[in-house]
Amino acid sequence: MRKKKWAEPYLSDHPEIALNDPAVYKGKWKQLFGCETLHVEIGMGKGDYLHHMAHAYPDEGWVGIEKDRSAAAVAVRKLAESEEFTGENERVIVSDAAALTEWFAPGEIDVIHLNFSDPWPKTYTHKRRLSSKQFLERYRQVLAENGTIRMKTDNKGLFEDSVLYFLENGFTFTEFSVDYRRTEHPEDAVTEYESRFMELGQPIYQLCAAVREN
Amino acid sequence: MRKKKWAEPYLSDHPEIALNDPAVYKGKWKQLFGCETLHVEIGMGKGDYLHHMAHAYPDEGWVGIEKDRSAAAVAVRKLAESEEFTGENERVIVSDAAALTEWFAPGEIDVIHLNFSDPWPKTYTHKRRLSSKQFLERYRQVLAENGTIRMKTDNKGLFEDSVLYFLENGFTFTEFSVDYRRTEHPEDAVTEYESRFMELGQPIYQLCAAVREN
Repeated sequence: MRKKKWAEPYLSDHPEIALNDPAVYKGKWKQLFGCETLHVEIGMGKGDYLHHMAHAYPDEGWVGIEKDRSAAAVAVRKLAESEEFTGENERVIVSDAAALTEWFAPGEIDVIHLNFSDPWPKTYTHKRRLSSKQFLERYRQVLAENGTIRMKTDNKGLFEDSVLYFLENGFTFTEFSVDYRRTEHPEDAVTEYESRFMELGQPIYQLCAAVREN
Repeated sequence: MRKKKWAEPYLSDHPEIALNDPAVYKGKWKQLFGCETLHVEIGMGKGDYLHHMAHAYPDEGWVGIEKDRSAAAVAVRKLAESEEFTGENERVIVSDAAALTEWFAPGEIDVIHLNFSDPWPKTYTHKRRLSSKQFLERYRQVLAENGTIRMKTDNKGLFEDSVLYFLENGFTFTEFSVDYRRTEHPEDAVTEYESRFMELGQPIYQLCAAVREN
C-alpha cells in the first residue's frame, strides 16, 4: 500500500483505537471488552472484515493487527469516523504480529483470523507467511484449548502450502472448503476485496484449524 | 455404465487378466509380478489410468479393482487386444473393494490410487465413498509402513469431505493441490476423462495421504 502522510499523526491521535502499548492488556483483553470470546485478525489490512464482524458480534471482542501503518490508519479512520461502527468491542495493534506473545497471554485467544494474507510466493520469502511454522508456533501459545484458526484466501499456492504447514505443526482441520462461497455463509462477513473474487468467479479457499488432540 | 451383454463371457474367457480367485495371491503379489512396489487402483473404471501407468512403470506391479462388470470388461478387453500394453505387470479384480483385506496381506500395498471416484453426493450414500472411514480402515490394514494413498478428483464436495475423513482417521498429507494440472506432472498419466476437465478449465483436486506417525 502507498504510504499515507497523514497516517502517523492520525494513529497518534487515536490511541483509544490504535493502542500505544497493547502489552498492558496481556491476560486482560476479555476484561477490557467484557466478553467471553476473543477474536484476533492478523493482517487485517484496511479493517473491513474486522469492523463488520465486530459490528455483527457485539458481545465478542475483536482485535486487529496490521504492521502496514498506512493500511492500519485507514482502518482506524473508518472506525473513528463511522456512524455505523461504535468500536467499543474493537481495538487495533499497529505492529508486526511476530510479537503476538508479548500482547496475549497463553490460552487467551479463542479465534485467530487470517484473511487473504500476503501469499509471499517466492520460496525464500515463505517464512514471512502468516501461516508459516514460525507463526503457527506463536498462535499455539496464545490459543485457548478449544481455539481455532480460520483462514481464507484466493491464492492457490498459499493455500496448498498452508494445508501442509498446519498438518506438520500439530493442527487438524474441522472445516475445509475449496470454494467457500458456493454455499451461503451469512455468519461470516464478505469484504469488498473478497466480493471482487466472487464476481470474477474465482474460488475462495477456506479452512478452520484446531490443535490436534492426540 | 450401461450393461454390456458381452462382458460376462469376456471376463470368463480372460482369467489371465481378470483373476478368478485373487485371494490366492494374498501375500504373494510382488512375487507374481517380480516387483518391489505394488500399486492398487480402486475403482479403475475402464482402466485407462491403470494401463498407462503399468506401461510407464514396467518394473512395478499394478492391480485394478472395479465392481462394475461392464466397465471392468472394457478395461480387460483394452488390455487383451492392445499391441501397446503387454499387461505382464497388470491384473484386474472384478469385485467390490470392500473385500480388499481378503486379497492383500497386511503391509502388502505401497500405493493405493483413487482416481475420480464416484462422489456419492447424497448424505445417506456417503459411506459408499472410496475415501470413507470404512474404506480408510481397510486401506490402513493393507498399506505398507511408508505406504500412501493418492487421490484425484474434480468433485469439490467429495474432495472437501475426504480431507476431513483422512485427517479424522489417522492420516496426514504429503502432497496437496487445489489445481493439480496447473503445473506439469509428467510422472502421472492424464486419462481422457481427466483431460476433459482440463479442457473445460476445471481444476483437478489432488492429495497424497500417509499414515500419521505420532
